[in-house]
Amino acid sequence: MSDPIYAYEALHTFALSVFTRIGCSPEEAALATRVLLAADLRGIDSHGIARLSGYVRLWEKQRVNSTPNVRIVHESPSTAVVDGDAGLGLVVAPKAMEIAIAKANQAGTGWVSVKNSNHFGIAGYHAMMALPHDMIGIAMTNASPLVAPTFSIERLLGTNPIAVAIPAATQPAFVADFATTTAANGKLEILQRKNQQAPVGWVQTKTGDASTDPNVTRNGGALLPLGSDREHGSHKGFCLGAWVDIFSAVLSGANYGPWVPPFVAFLDPPTDPVGEGIGHFFGAMRVDAFRPAEEFKLHMDNWILRFRSARTVPGHDAVVIPGDPEREMHSQRMTHGIPLNEKVVIDL
Amino acid sequence: MSDPIYAYEALHTFALSVFTRIGCSPEEAALATRVLLAADLRGIDSHGIARLSGYVRLWEKQRVNSTPNVRIVHESPSTAVVDGDAGLGLVVAPKAMEIAIAKANQAGTGWVSVKNSNHFGIAGYHAMMALPHDMIGIAMTNASPLVAPTFSIERLLGTNPIAVAIPAATQPAFVADFATTTAANGKLEILQRKNQQAPVGWVQTKTGDASTDPNVTRNGGALLPLGSDREHGSHKGFCLGAWVDIFSAVLSGANYGPWVPPFVAFLDPPTDPVGEGIGHFFGAMRVDAFRPAEEFKLHMDNWILRFRSARTVPGHDAVVIPGDPEREMHSQRMTHGIPLNEKVVIDL
Repeated sequence: MSDPIYAYEALHTFALSVFTRIGCSPEEAALATRVLLAADLRGIDSHGIARLSGYVRLWEKQRVNSTPNVRIVHESPSTAVVDGDAGLGLVVAPKAMEIAIAKANQAGTGWVSVKNSNHFGIAGYHAMMALPHDMIGIAMTNASPLVAPTFSIERLLGTNPIAVAIPAATQPAFVADFATTTAANGKLEILQRKNQQAPVGWVQTKTGDASTDPNVTRNGGALLPLGSDREHGSHKGFCLGAWVDIFSAVLSGANYGPWVPPFVAFLDPPTDPVGEGIGHFFGAMRVDAFRPAEEFKLHMDNWILRFRSARTVPGHDAVVIPGDPEREMHSQRMTHGIPLNEKVVIDL
Repeated sequence: MSDPIYAYEALHTFALSVFTRIGCSPEEAALATRVLLAADLRGIDSHGIARLSGYVRLWEKQRVNSTPNVRIVHESPSTAVVDGDAGLGLVVAPKAMEIAIAKANQAGTGWVSVKNSNHFGIAGYHAMMALPHDMIGIAMTNASPLVAPTFSIERLLGTNPIAVAIPAATQPAFVADFATTTAANGKLEILQRKNQQAPVGWVQTKTGDASTDPNVTRNGGALLPLGSDREHGSHKGFCLGAWVDIFSAVLSGANYGPWVPPFVAFLDPPTDPVGEGIGHFFGAMRVDAFRPAEEFKLHMDNWILRFRSARTVPGHDAVVIPGDPEREMHSQRMTHGIPLNEKVVIDL
């Protein structure tokens, strides 16, 4: 049975009314809606409207502030720390990214670490905000602990994604946006719903044994860092997740590592916090702070075309340039609508 | 038979005399020697004195300039592009990192993209230069193409390492330094010398088939991006390698992707260059541009201690904090000397 399909406009109206009902200002409700639905449009269903009820439940528990005073608490010409005032990450993050872009306009680059925030949707949205300014955008966030570092049986890191958006001239932008684990938690959730096994290397049991059970994270098991195991470089995936955690939270004064509060309202945050809320990190780099933007973008076109036209392994048409699949999905779903899982529809 | 062991001082005297003989100034010969031997001390033998004869051969072919005029060609308050004037990367890189640190002193952060350089030794050395300044250091470089992106049978990227060094208070600094491939080329070279097989997932044949032959890269085969295959996230490793390539070379005007010149003198550079030499990228972030340095460093201590004391998978004592093994190796080799492979000794 195929999933019911909804037009973007219908979901937009619905989400906007929900954010308004929990007390967001019209501007911030519109912003949160736009950021949230960018995930559905780009095909990252786990981070879109499927999360809307979760945000509401956190608001009911007073863990989300719908009228936050998002403000700079410390700054230098190229940096800032932003206090998200427990706002929706969907609102705090684009505001922080705007600050990074404004800093880059002045100083060449801007770098903003954020504390006291919540789940910010997809990292790619925020990184891509830099593109119309002929800037390179970077976005990272920490997240509730689900990942065991190499040799650990404890879950100490989130799936801590990194996004990097780089403008080109006539080619679409290069947009990488990936969890620093072998597989994102959303992929595991899909297997849970379909009652299918996971490939070896995605998760381990609570005693650290290899497993193909996608439900293992509900029983003390863990996602694995990119690389899967030590022999295949999981210590590098751990480095990446740690990097994101430290830039997002130790730099800003948010909670880090195992202290990051859970995204779900039915689990309480740790009683011994080491900071405030969750943390994000944003960067904006003006291309012409390095070389003329047109020159750079023409070379990016050349880079993209060369990689896309590489000779491929039999059975594959082309090397996939980061951002291509999500952009195609965006265009398709804008035209044909967004399929929603039935459980998500009932929940909404 | 165990490898012969040499005192650091002996190797230092030898390398210094070689760099002096090819025409480096006393200061630059000393700098190049220090950077080169940092690799041997930290146990990254493939990047240390084993490469010295390679540098000399590139100089003989006039592909390395021993008296470079390393200079800023473009800048903003927080950025610079540096022209390495075909100098040794061992000299160009620390000079560029000094510029990043000086920019950070003024603007909070400093970001330097470098063109027209050569192999720069280990990325970690340059990133760690930030630590005594209470700064976070970042270093990346592109490298000659040995890596096939996901679905490609062509080698389009180097092993493109990333290093991130983050200061702590009483704990040793967090120092991540890793190739963006499943395994660094140096690990493959070790297997080649020992005539041992590689694990599945490190390399592929020239037709894109899985292989355990460490010599496969000599026959058109390729190293694989971190993640090994699509199902285990190799597209993320490709994103990382691409990120390093673009920041190092498209931002600076160096050669990128398959146009990066080979590190060995017996292979000629491409005849259709898209830039000058190879590229690096450096960052320095003043911690107190975000929050007071002492506060940050105490939280880093807490982060490190929490992760190091995590409960572990049976058979492993502790989660390894990035930088710990290399620091221990450094201390041991300073005391007991540096073992050199016999082939390396003969070559020298």
